[in-house]
Amino acid sequence: MLSWLQQYRRAMLPGDISAGIVVAMMMIPQGMAYALVAGLPPVAGIYASIVPPLLYALFGTSSTQSVGPMAIISLMVASALAPLATPGSALYGVLAAQLALMSGAVLLACGLLRIGFLANFFSRPVMSGFTIGAALLIAWGQLRPLLGGMPPAGHWPSAIMGLGALAALLWARSFLAGALRRAGLSAAAADIGSKLAPMLVVIGATLVVAVTGLDARGVATVGAVPAGLPGLNLAASSAHWQLLLQPALLIGFMIFLISMSAAQALARKRGEQLGSNQELLGLGAANIGSALSGGFPVTGSISRSAVNFAAGANSQLASIITAALLALALVAPTGWLALLPLPVLAATIIVAVLGMLDLSLLRTAWRYDRADVAALAATGLGVLVMGVEAGVVVGLALSMGALIWRASRPHIAVLGRIRGSEHFRNVERYATETAPGLLMLRVDAGLFFGNVEAVNARIEDELAAHPATRHLVLVLSAVNAIDTSALFALGELNSSLCQRGVLLHLAEVKGPVMDRLKHSTLLQALHGRLFLSAAMAWDQLAVQAGMDPGA
Amino acid sequence: MLSWLQQYRRAMLPGDISAGIVVAMMMIPQGMAYALVAGLPPVAGIYASIVPPLLYALFGTSSTQSVGPMAIISLMVASALAPLATPGSALYGVLAAQLALMSGAVLLACGLLRIGFLANFFSRPVMSGFTIGAALLIAWGQLRPLLGGMPPAGHWPSAIMGLGALAALLWARSFLAGALRRAGLSAAAADIGSKLAPMLVVIGATLVVAVTGLDARGVATVGAVPAGLPGLNLAASSAHWQLLLQPALLIGFMIFLISMSAAQALARKRGEQLGSNQELLGLGAANIGSALSGGFPVTGSISRSAVNFAAGANSQLASIITAALLALALVAPTGWLALLPLPVLAATIIVAVLGMLDLSLLRTAWRYDRADVAALAATGLGVLVMGVEAGVVVGLALSMGALIWRASRPHIAVLGRIRGSEHFRNVERYATETAPGLLMLRVDAGLFFGNVEAVNARIEDELAAHPATRHLVLVLSAVNAIDTSALFALGELNSSLCQRGVLLHLAEVKGPVMDRLKHSTLLQALHGRLFLSAAMAWDQLAVQAGMDPGA
Repeated sequence: MLSWLQQYRRAMLPGDISAGIVVAMMMIPQGMAYALVAGLPPVAGIYASIVPPLLYALFGTSSTQSVGPMAIISLMVASALAPLATPGSALYGVLAAQLALMSGAVLLACGLLRIGFLANFFSRPVMSGFTIGAALLIAWGQLRPLLGGMPPAGHWPSAIMGLGALAALLWARSFLAGALRRAGLSAAAADIGSKLAPMLVVIGATLVVAVTGLDARGVATVGAVPAGLPGLNLAASSAHWQLLLQPALLIGFMIFLISMSAAQALARKRGEQLGSNQELLGLGAANIGSALSGGFPVTGSISRSAVNFAAGANSQLASIITAALLALALVAPTGWLALLPLPVLAATIIVAVLGMLDLSLLRTAWRYDRADVAALAATGLGVLVMGVEAGVVVGLALSMGALIWRASRPHIAVLGRIRGSEHFRNVERYATETAPGLLMLRVDAGLFFGNVEAVNARIEDELAAHPATRHLVLVLSAVNAIDTSALFALGELNSSLCQRGVLLHLAEVKGPVMDRLKHSTLLQALHGRLFLSAAMAWDQLAVQAGMDPGA
Repeated sequence: MLSWLQQYRRAMLPGDISAGIVVAMMMIPQGMAYALVAGLPPVAGIYASIVPPLLYALFGTSSTQSVGPMAIISLMVASALAPLATPGSALYGVLAAQLALMSGAVLLACGLLRIGFLANFFSRPVMSGFTIGAALLIAWGQLRPLLGGMPPAGHWPSAIMGLGALAALLWARSFLAGALRRAGLSAAAADIGSKLAPMLVVIGATLVVAVTGLDARGVATVGAVPAGLPGLNLAASSAHWQLLLQPALLIGFMIFLISMSAAQALARKRGEQLGSNQELLGLGAANIGSALSGGFPVTGSISRSAVNFAAGANSQLASIITAALLALALVAPTGWLALLPLPVLAATIIVAVLGMLDLSLLRTAWRYDRADVAALAATGLGVLVMGVEAGVVVGLALSMGALIWRASRPHIAVLGRIRGSEHFRNVERYATETAPGLLMLRVDAGLFFGNVEAVNARIEDELAAHPATRHLVLVLSAVNAIDTSALFALGELNSSLCQRGVLLHLAEVKGPVMDRLKHSTLLQALHGRLFLSAAMAWDQLAVQAGMDPGA
């Protein structure tokens, strides 16, 4: 849990400090902006950036993960709470924290149940479609604050500030790093410097409002930000536990998937191993901490984590420094934040989510696998047309479907003997001999509920193609496990074949499978025999079937 | 679609007629009883037994499947409609038909999308747990009608009739077949005869009420059953489409799973092949037909289908005869049915669902696989504690979890060369030689989103165990497909290994996989090489790694 502290070396400190500062500078505008996406006052985003990363540093495994507010999760919070409370109301804030508490509890429970293997449930195309759909939905939702109203009824001063900030941020995204390099910074420093553009734009815009008094002329601003650290929040609405259960499950699920995909990307760069169950505990603790400190659901963010890593973070200390700086920012005078114009925050959100519109997977899949393009498009359209929760459900259904489809197509080979040898191979790929009346099948997958009917169907097909069959040998050399469903199916196959005059035999049963089968009645009930090898089965049964096996 | 008609032979007729009559005699009390379980007037159960089997005969594939009302589906209907309407009200009947229409549309759509492979989604333990939980829930729900009230406030005459019927039916279930055999009937005829006990008990009890006038003394009866065939029902509540969507999806899903497991059990006995997509179309048509004729959701029933088969059904004609007889029963005077006492119908339901309490799977799994026992128990408790819909969701979650767990544990072998040969085998099982600096891994599963992270993790483990590795060869002889997620993961692995001074090579890529990879940039980006065989990789790389491969 704190193994990184024991391994801490002094040489890691400078990197951690610089990364801590850089990420804090990113976190202030991002935290406030994503709180707005979630329908909450901006300060909630700062609250959600202090305690959660501290708890994640205690319980999580990724050393460079930056845990805090994240656009998609904020969108899910807004979508879950929309039917239950008015954004800005006290109840809304209570429910947002309650959602973080419940999502955190779900994540913690999953970690304790050790079901972290669920991390790879969504295929990349599904995740990509989900992300693109959510990014477009978030950007669309920011049009109104960006322009001070929906076009054509915008508010000119707001629209000019918003679009100006948008232009500045888009320029910074494309050209700032280059300009900084030309100004003499190293490539890495220039890249990191360009990530501070949102903070600079926010400070600049706040100064403009302070100087011009545009807030008095209708430009919406953040308004008074309460100073001081967040207090302990234990408020919850007892009437809403049940209504929040389904959103909490879906949000908890996406918190895990999003954080794991960010952590995995970084772990690959460092050759680091992640413990997915430990990650669940870390994210669960972070969300419960967020709830208790008046925040809302948080997760690991790929964009911030990448900056953290690039800015030199060597350990969890970087995140602790970030959290400490944010706490300092709240203790320092926060009055200046009141004049921060909302159109500019909207611009930072739009530019941030545009960065999530990664079409490279779509382009690759288009040439490589159209089924994956369909999965991407269906999930993306699901989000756009039916909303972000429905998008998660569409993604779940598609991934489930893909898993079952794969499971239901095990590779099954009809075996023949390579003439004059003890070797048995797929008759379709090798020149082999077969014996009339003897059918040998090899199933190249563990037998379980997902594929037993496919195996049954293939057996029926082969029996129809070889009507003279009297002996069916299942060669189980590649079968590592047989579950209860498959055990029953084998028992039924044994009886049904016997009624039709075919004996079922098993060959090359692996040790662990055999140990397990001894706890069942299948072996006693088997009408055929058990052979150590396919060759032994051939020697015995090809003779019985009336053929000289040596011929 | 009507291929069975072309193959019809005259010799099949007697069996079809006798089965048609026997099933009709079962169907009358069952249909009425299951309509009551669904919260509908008994005649709706007869309606639901006429048009659906006719449409199933047209579109389905199982020749002996008996489609109609079924206890678990009726329970799901009652549970879905409970929050929306009062049982017995006109709206309730409209919504029940609407639910059949929507479930039918879902089934039809799934059939047209050809996703019948979902049939094996539930493992047998999950299905068994679900069935046991639902059976107990149904039996519990029949206590009140059985006793004329909840104990201790029952109604004595009702309780005596109900418990008397229960005792008679339990006796019949255990001993009637034996008695009939001793009376000279063949074993098969005796078995079938014993299935008619519910009809006999119902007729007997109706006669008792008619003679004693117990209905006037508080014994609840079926009441007036409208005579005549069902009319065309086009009523639907436009306010309820959205509310019924989720129940319709779950009910459609269970209709398919229940019907397929019944049909598969029979198909095994006949060595018949089922088309799961055609089944979806048949069940979809049957449910839409049920909706249009004033019924409610229907499915294939394992108990009735088994009787149909045992009574000699050779083709779909048996079901057509059953439907015709039920239509006749409605055209004939139905006045006598009015006096049928409800406590007796409750007794028939309880005995029917007791037949679903099959604990043999639980017993087998207890000795064979405790994880399957846990899945069974969790699903059963889910149904009992949280209701039948939650039980389906628990079953879905457990099955999904099991699928992902399996997918996330692909078999991966470190390969070594069998000394002096061209053969490469698992180093853990064969005496092999390996070359320092060269690591060869064989993945025994197609690479896809469900297992790429497991492959990554194993590679990191092996690299940690073999820190001198300079060449990693992935032997893809068992990889039949690489999806887009795995393609990206391989690309990332290629770069991340290269940064750490390890070259990624691929060997024994199968033809179809190679054709697909040519549509991607992986092969150009590969830092290592592509080898036709593991032996060629060894010959090239073991030398480079500083070892004489012939040594």
